[in-house]
Amino acid sequence: KVIWTLLVTILGYASSLPVSDDSICTAEELAKYSIIFTGKWSQTAFPKQYPLYRPPAQWSSLLGVTHSSDYSMWKKNEYASNGVRDFAEKGEAWLLMKEIEEAGEKIQSVHGIFSAPAISSGTGQTSTELEVHSRHPLVSFVVRIVPSPDWFVGIDSLNLCEGDHWMEEVSVDLFPYDAGTDSGFTFSSPNFATIPQDTVTEITCSSPSHPANSFYYPKLKILPPIAQVTMVKLKKTQLGLPAPYLNLQAKSNEVIDTVS
Amino acid sequence: KVIWTLLVTILGYASSLPVSDDSICTAEELAKYSIIFTGKWSQTAFPKQYPLYRPPAQWSSLLGVTHSSDYSMWKKNEYASNGVRDFAEKGEAWLLMKEIEEAGEKIQSVHGIFSAPAISSGTGQTSTELEVHSRHPLVSFVVRIVPSPDWFVGIDSLNLCEGDHWMEEVSVDLFPYDAGTDSGFTFSSPNFATIPQDTVTEITCSSPSHPANSFYYPKLKILPPIAQVTMVKLKKTQLGLPAPYLNLQAKSNEVIDTVS
Repeated sequence: KVIWTLLVTILGYASSLPVSDDSICTAEELAKYSIIFTGKWSQTAFPKQYPLYRPPAQWSSLLGVTHSSDYSMWKKNEYASNGVRDFAEKGEAWLLMKEIEEAGEKIQSVHGIFSAPAISSGTGQTSTELEVHSRHPLVSFVVRIVPSPDWFVGIDSLNLCEGDHWMEEVSVDLFPYDAGTDSGFTFSSPNFATIPQDTVTEITCSSPSHPANSFYYPKLKILPPIAQVTMVKLKKTQLGLPAPYLNLQAKSNEVIDTVS
Repeated sequence: KVIWTLLVTILGYASSLPVSDDSICTAEELAKYSIIFTGKWSQTAFPKQYPLYRPPAQWSSLLGVTHSSDYSMWKKNEYASNGVRDFAEKGEAWLLMKEIEEAGEKIQSVHGIFSAPAISSGTGQTSTELEVHSRHPLVSFVVRIVPSPDWFVGIDSLNLCEGDHWMEEVSVDLFPYDAGTDSGFTFSSPNFATIPQDTVTEITCSSPSHPANSFYYPKLKILPPIAQVTMVKLKKTQLGLPAPYLNLQAKSNEVIDTVS
């Protein structure tokens, strides 16, 4: 059995590749995937202002959607919806879920919503299943960086269909984004609404270009990935995690003193 | 169209009714439900030691499973698994997900896992979909009470099948449980492992019988429900929330100053 793996590690993957709106998916109608999210937000990799207490570094629930190119959950350099703002600022998912449901009802652009449990440390894993449809082959999701003003990681409109077949496996490195709705500069900044709202921007080691920024590392060329996501196609009858992932340890190299 | 609603509001529902292990489900093989979890943990209903800061009152991700009577996620008066302990103490879901996957692989007792995003306040809503199978008609789930030592709400083995048909709608009031793994008495108690581990017990307004306990209200007969869950059967082609639930506001009567 040939496992075909695509490793995409280009910075800003989702927005730097053109979304293949026009490609027609002629693969089997439905496909199921396991999606495994791995936090790589360790104190070793991100020593600056690493949050240790109240709350320590951790990840919110993951909220995702499978959809057609008529829907967009979030997009670099565009304004975040109110639902994405609530999620990025507070981890509150209800409004974003309603926006997705409404897009599904009105313009039939959504196949399904999926979510995975929160992770109580900066390094650890969570997973769930998702289903794509040949008319809804795109995957988007968001995970809030906790604590943070309005920072998140995610994927925007990754196409799991390649012409006449579904990808077997895809991994993407993830980098932090700013939702453009809160002007805080550091993980633990107090709330300070950005008025007028700014667009979604990628946070890099040099931008925002200010020494106070939590991700400002002037000696680095690029930030290490703060998280990674892997999607693996499941056999029709398969439940949950595929075998090679079932016995993975949640790799935590931090001593946890969680408050939540 | 007749909507048949079963409202079960008996204290300690899941364990006070006999689990109908022996009833054979002859309903259609598969059924999909929307599950809507509503937090009712307000300062008005639960004034004592209500957590306002770092973190304020909130709910973890919801983690659930559809299964046969060969599997049990948690049970009153029995010992919590290590996975349930991690989830109840820290909201860390990975070990519990692995336990569920392994039960699914080994004894075929699990149909699927589902999860819903966390809620960033004590009163609010979250939802997701779940699928039951005629050989796996039972639903169990847990949601951690945040902050708390090891307290949670949940359902243990609720049977959605009634002989030859699937229930249309079911609502259950939820009350707090103690996982028996941490001896803290109040929402914000520091970690203090219970050795030897105790069994899962329901927390009532009079038990634990100690004035320091956060749920000790000696003047009440019973606690008000701290949460509620509603499951509504979906039509085959229906996406997500059924229409009457789509426009519900997340009812929050608290001013939120969330830190996570």
